[in-house]
Amino acid sequence: MKTGLSRTVDGWVRTVNLSLPSLQDNTADADRLKHILRKTLRTDHVHIDTNILRELPFHIRDWHYAARCIVIKDPATEQWYLIGILNPLEDRPVTGVAVDLGTSRVAVRMVALVSGNVLYETSFDNPQLQVGPDVLTRVHACDQPGGLSSLNQMLIQELNRQIHKACQACDLETQDVYFMALAGNTCMTHFFMGLSPRWMIREPYIPVINSPDLERAATYGIQINPAGRALVFPNIGSYFGGDLIAGILHSGIGKQTEPAILVDVGTNAEVVLGNDSWLVACAGAAGPALEGGVARIGMMAGPGVVDRVRIDADSHAIEVHTIEKMPAIGICGSGVIDLAANLFLAGMIDLRGRFVPEACGDKLTIQAGMPFFEVVSADTSGTGSALKISQADLDSLIRSKAAMYTILETITDSVGMTLNDLKTFYVAGTFGTFIDPVSAVTIGMLPDLPTGTYRPLGNSSLEGATQVLTSCESLLQIGKIKEKITYLELNVNQTFMNRFSAAKFIPHTDTSRFPSLK
Amino acid sequence: MKTGLSRTVDGWVRTVNLSLPSLQDNTADADRLKHILRKTLRTDHVHIDTNILRELPFHIRDWHYAARCIVIKDPATEQWYLIGILNPLEDRPVTGVAVDLGTSRVAVRMVALVSGNVLYETSFDNPQLQVGPDVLTRVHACDQPGGLSSLNQMLIQELNRQIHKACQACDLETQDVYFMALAGNTCMTHFFMGLSPRWMIREPYIPVINSPDLERAATYGIQINPAGRALVFPNIGSYFGGDLIAGILHSGIGKQTEPAILVDVGTNAEVVLGNDSWLVACAGAAGPALEGGVARIGMMAGPGVVDRVRIDADSHAIEVHTIEKMPAIGICGSGVIDLAANLFLAGMIDLRGRFVPEACGDKLTIQAGMPFFEVVSADTSGTGSALKISQADLDSLIRSKAAMYTILETITDSVGMTLNDLKTFYVAGTFGTFIDPVSAVTIGMLPDLPTGTYRPLGNSSLEGATQVLTSCESLLQIGKIKEKITYLELNVNQTFMNRFSAAKFIPHTDTSRFPSLK
Repeated sequence: MKTGLSRTVDGWVRTVNLSLPSLQDNTADADRLKHILRKTLRTDHVHIDTNILRELPFHIRDWHYAARCIVIKDPATEQWYLIGILNPLEDRPVTGVAVDLGTSRVAVRMVALVSGNVLYETSFDNPQLQVGPDVLTRVHACDQPGGLSSLNQMLIQELNRQIHKACQACDLETQDVYFMALAGNTCMTHFFMGLSPRWMIREPYIPVINSPDLERAATYGIQINPAGRALVFPNIGSYFGGDLIAGILHSGIGKQTEPAILVDVGTNAEVVLGNDSWLVACAGAAGPALEGGVARIGMMAGPGVVDRVRIDADSHAIEVHTIEKMPAIGICGSGVIDLAANLFLAGMIDLRGRFVPEACGDKLTIQAGMPFFEVVSADTSGTGSALKISQADLDSLIRSKAAMYTILETITDSVGMTLNDLKTFYVAGTFGTFIDPVSAVTIGMLPDLPTGTYRPLGNSSLEGATQVLTSCESLLQIGKIKEKITYLELNVNQTFMNRFSAAKFIPHTDTSRFPSLK
Repeated sequence: MKTGLSRTVDGWVRTVNLSLPSLQDNTADADRLKHILRKTLRTDHVHIDTNILRELPFHIRDWHYAARCIVIKDPATEQWYLIGILNPLEDRPVTGVAVDLGTSRVAVRMVALVSGNVLYETSFDNPQLQVGPDVLTRVHACDQPGGLSSLNQMLIQELNRQIHKACQACDLETQDVYFMALAGNTCMTHFFMGLSPRWMIREPYIPVINSPDLERAATYGIQINPAGRALVFPNIGSYFGGDLIAGILHSGIGKQTEPAILVDVGTNAEVVLGNDSWLVACAGAAGPALEGGVARIGMMAGPGVVDRVRIDADSHAIEVHTIEKMPAIGICGSGVIDLAANLFLAGMIDLRGRFVPEACGDKLTIQAGMPFFEVVSADTSGTGSALKISQADLDSLIRSKAAMYTILETITDSVGMTLNDLKTFYVAGTFGTFIDPVSAVTIGMLPDLPTGTYRPLGNSSLEGATQVLTSCESLLQIGKIKEKITYLELNVNQTFMNRFSAAKFIPHTDTSRFPSLK
């Protein structure tokens, strides 16, 4: 965490004192202000919005040639913009909003630009869910006349409504919001900007833009201060989005000398490995085994969702933990992994993830030829029906965990490292927050590293977006991260398939890789 | 004049061919376009307007990965912007408008950006004349609530009306206009941008801005292509406007090794002296003798206005020439100078510019103690009354011509030159077009240089603005000119007053300076 002081020095709000005009120094007001801003910001040029120029001469005279300036820098052009001036003697709040634009959930956080304090935070369903739960359906919806515009407007209107609500909650006006930083996957940011994602899902998978420039938020229809700017995090390609770049920023991987790895499991699995001099990245959707995402089974975390499972190895009694301890209504990714690990340790599934009927007993039933395992009985569940997991669900998990392990193996191998060389393993997202690393290691999804190696990062996309709201240095990091990343195309060649096949066992065909499971 | 070829190479319209996307080269559309534009324009960054991004993926595929690009460079930041893309196989016109925003008259010229051809040109009264004929009245009108906004809107609406008219005349849409270059005095450009001129007329005479950045024309309410940009020529201070910088650009003074001088006589007298390594400038309104402008007497050139006068030295018969040979309705600056020179040569006024009653005869009458001289009789004039010039008018001319000569003497002296060292003497504006240098030399307004030294520049402000519509190099010259100029404050000290007093005689107390009059 930074101190208030370094925040102020590095941040977007600067109070300046202008020299007084005289017959000997009769520079124009704007040029006088630019002069001191250039010195303060160590730059050659500061652009002043025309609307500010219209107020400037009145304000600086009223304020005795001092002003609290809200500035922002375009990281691509290194161009500074003056986007607001306030009376230095008044304490009018200056805020920004960070947005994590997920396919399913959107998180919005309002932050005071000077203190960095979080003033308000909310999350809500992506309104595009009404069009389709997955990205593909939404992209196809754009082929209809007005389809893109409608998907775009869903997002913009909901974001405006939520920002308005955030302002009301904080007793602020939308005028007081000067900066929006938004991170999302490539498709979501394209929807946000009103850009067609049509060619992202068709070979050779081309987005409209990789690095959006800093724009006025109004350009996108976002209703904050009219001079307020919006930064959309860049993407590397169609499958490597700005959310992961925000995550890398938040993790600090790009600034450490010791190599670290970051895994973000959302709709896709995205992995980054590197340090302050190199970064290698790949995204899971590149391999056919991963289509539909690593965590296809399970539902999103929420009250009543099973997130932890323990099975007594002797009695085979199942103990589940639900979020907010509500009656169980479903199971999320971390719950499924916990369940699989415990089933395996209790001998209720075999090395290939198949249910062992004799060990499962009456918990296992066959419906239409498909084995189902009852995790929570109908009388204790929150739905009135039993909560079950099918063999197909388990098979899917096995494929997913094998793909994840194979990706991790491939990416470390690509830079001449082994999985055991990893000293820091960041796990982002709700997956990272809820997952029990021991269970993930048990099923061979994650490598057998000391438990302390695994560090949950939380919503790293939102955290990364938040970071640039108060720090110029963080904003500039974005471009550096993007430039540094080598994107590794996951060639589904024989080596990949061999590794994938080997990883489809629990924990792995090569059990020597998982000494802690002995 | 530049050739069509160099225009294209240096200009704002560039046709580019993009590399084709493939799995091996899956850069985003925008980044692909930026790549080739960066190479073409030799720059690090090109900004693409969001509205263009929205069309881009469809267009470049329809156009087989080629595009005619309209680009523009912000001379302050050296930042390039892509503001339009067109089908390279269609010949849709791409135009710009140059504007000379005068206190009294406004000139608008529509130019084809590729060929540089003038498609349309018009001039009209500055609509602010309804508020007041002079700048001062208009500035004071801004103190009323809504005053500035109303003055601003008069200009913007009339400019929009005229641009619309120009488009209709050329069978174009306002969409086809991508660039506006506007030059005017500091007050007029402030009115155009909606910036308060209030402190420009109050000590220490501070404008709001000296160097406006390149903005979207829409920022100022100008209705051309929504992505179209507007360049407002910079000013040096309250009394040295962008119109003169445009004039310097047009004259080419700043690019020649031989020093030359440029005089622009409008509401004020502005003078620039220099070459490719230095420029010194001063403006006439800086001296109290010049208040109200050098050419206070006389009316604007127009049909029926006397612009040339000859007096037979023997018979004292007066022969006048009027514009379009219409019956005389008034006399303009050049006519007054011609008249004074001829009166002096015929012995009808003395060295101090006083009427000589015995030489003037019955053409001279006294009304309320003031001598009046009849230039055109009531029966031949176009107004039904005699056209007369008073002793007060002549006194005013003498003060003006003395001020002009003193300024010329002061500015050449400031760089260690004498007036006789001047080899090229540009005279801008209608004044420069109509003035007879021989008459101006006769009354000692201009120094006694060979007639060929004096070169009329025409509307150099409009010409300078036109130049940047087709040439990036010219646009960049603006900043170089502005940086190079040393603004000479005309200190009304004893030396200035002595020179001024000596210049109040016809042609001068020191007649040796005017050998040609012998």
